[in-house]
Amino acid sequence: MPVSEFSLIDRYLATQGLSRSDVALGIGDDCALLLPPTGQHLVVTMDTLVADVHFFAATDPAGLGHKALAVNLSDLAAMGATPAWATLALTLPAADENWLGRFCRGLFALADRHGVQLVGGDTTHGPTTVITIQAHGFIPPGLALRRDGAKPGDGIYVTGTPGDAGLALAAACGKTTVVAEYRDYIRRRLEWPEPRIAQGLALRGIASAAIDISDGLAQDLGHILERSRVGARLEVERLPLSPALAASLDRDAALMFALASGDDYELCFTVPPERTVQLEALVTDWDCCCTRIGVITAEPGLRLIRADGSDFRLERLGYDHFG
Amino acid sequence: MPVSEFSLIDRYLATQGLSRSDVALGIGDDCALLLPPTGQHLVVTMDTLVADVHFFAATDPAGLGHKALAVNLSDLAAMGATPAWATLALTLPAADENWLGRFCRGLFALADRHGVQLVGGDTTHGPTTVITIQAHGFIPPGLALRRDGAKPGDGIYVTGTPGDAGLALAAACGKTTVVAEYRDYIRRRLEWPEPRIAQGLALRGIASAAIDISDGLAQDLGHILERSRVGARLEVERLPLSPALAASLDRDAALMFALASGDDYELCFTVPPERTVQLEALVTDWDCCCTRIGVITAEPGLRLIRADGSDFRLERLGYDHFG
Repeated sequence: MPVSEFSLIDRYLATQGLSRSDVALGIGDDCALLLPPTGQHLVVTMDTLVADVHFFAATDPAGLGHKALAVNLSDLAAMGATPAWATLALTLPAADENWLGRFCRGLFALADRHGVQLVGGDTTHGPTTVITIQAHGFIPPGLALRRDGAKPGDGIYVTGTPGDAGLALAAACGKTTVVAEYRDYIRRRLEWPEPRIAQGLALRGIASAAIDISDGLAQDLGHILERSRVGARLEVERLPLSPALAASLDRDAALMFALASGDDYELCFTVPPERTVQLEALVTDWDCCCTRIGVITAEPGLRLIRADGSDFRLERLGYDHFG
Repeated sequence: MPVSEFSLIDRYLATQGLSRSDVALGIGDDCALLLPPTGQHLVVTMDTLVADVHFFAATDPAGLGHKALAVNLSDLAAMGATPAWATLALTLPAADENWLGRFCRGLFALADRHGVQLVGGDTTHGPTTVITIQAHGFIPPGLALRRDGAKPGDGIYVTGTPGDAGLALAAACGKTTVVAEYRDYIRRRLEWPEPRIAQGLALRGIASAAIDISDGLAQDLGHILERSRVGARLEVERLPLSPALAASLDRDAALMFALASGDDYELCFTVPPERTVQLEALVTDWDCCCTRIGVITAEPGLRLIRADGSDFRLERLGYDHFG
């Protein structure tokens, strides 16, 4: 017997243990009633994952629950915001209780870890699984890490090791082979990305611009350049390659993945020279590496340079949903 | 040549003329930055429309843009909230510029009319069109029209003429015929629902509970009864039937549509006896009818009564997404 929408919502989506004091009314009415903190900006972002486009339909639902929230928290991180609330729109081909239970386990584990409460949403029937989450956070006015603040001379940095998720996807599609010892690691990088919330918070007042790398480092850095009306000189040999990526592909192919494959959810940000010392002190506490990969230039455009000064040619810039 | 996601967003979704002073940063960064008013509750709701489930794939995109926002504004109305901002997650099988242009025209016309600014979202590729909107509004603490405030003795009211959208859907599916002169009217009721924002605002401090009728009057009233731990006695002959519904079906079938067909987006609400006079003064200004259809009882359950006192039997309660 099919389970009705309402019992589904009650049984799974309303079972999160976390209960924030700024939620006056959560799941179960026409709307949620929330109390944003006085004098702060409300920071909102919305991201969708579609089956067979952003994930394989057979993916572990717990990982999907994690990732659907993680990609949104990653946007909050890129803004330097403190996460608070989320809403979920879930379109499913069938009311599969086992799937839902696992999905919620992954979703709530990450939500609890960042103090995020699920306050509402909508569950609908459809031919394909589509997961949209909206995440809400806060930041004091003036401190948000926007895309439009980079200035010539600012250093360009990236957290973690971009390209791993792209490698995992290429391997899953049979387009490349990954050394056996790294298979678990790269699958985890694709399916369980860790939003860089702590890093985003730490970068308030330090970074001049920031973005999260969801569509590929080169393309996403390009958004900072465009919005800031500047260019960049990126030294490709400085790109931090994970041992998994370095061991699985030849060097140029690995650099290509680090620059142009999507789904990394690392932060790319810029820091003015006078704050470099502050940044260097900060990153020693981080649970991920942070690497300086280039510099912002007054001359527009993104130049990719090898150690010998020659140009590195990218075959494609990054992921385009309709390309 | 396919249009890239980014130019799509720039070209269409960022073209709304409206610019609210409480939007510090709108479309174009990782997140939007918003300034909620001090001391008010933030009211949030999220609703999804799926092609071939909630609408015919060939529906006029302008109507879809209107309806996708209208169903969310209807939830804000049911809470008594003042609308403010919206975000949009749009999954599309193809980047069809003509479709997008028309969709945005319908969306923005309704948004502008209610002072709602689109502040962000996500555009993705997928096999089916899926439209999720999150709407945000405000309400002073204590004034929200919740589902859990109905008390025995409160009158039960409904705005407009429920059942029209269900009739339009039944006619479109070839399950019934509609008198020719009413065809445009009922299609408009299905495809261009008018969210009862003004009514919701007027009911602050008057209604003891409210809900919007998206899944059928009987079922949605049932949610008020359940959350308020009360019952209701509904006099079915008092149900306001539109001339279109009354002319197209026999009386019992028409009542069935008014009670159990979905997609109406009217408000069902309860009012304590001592505020009936206030309500009656209010409704004279409304642009829709408002009808008393029953009374809240201490005895649980929903009793449907005919004028002669006999029970009216409903074949089904309302719309269930997985039923």
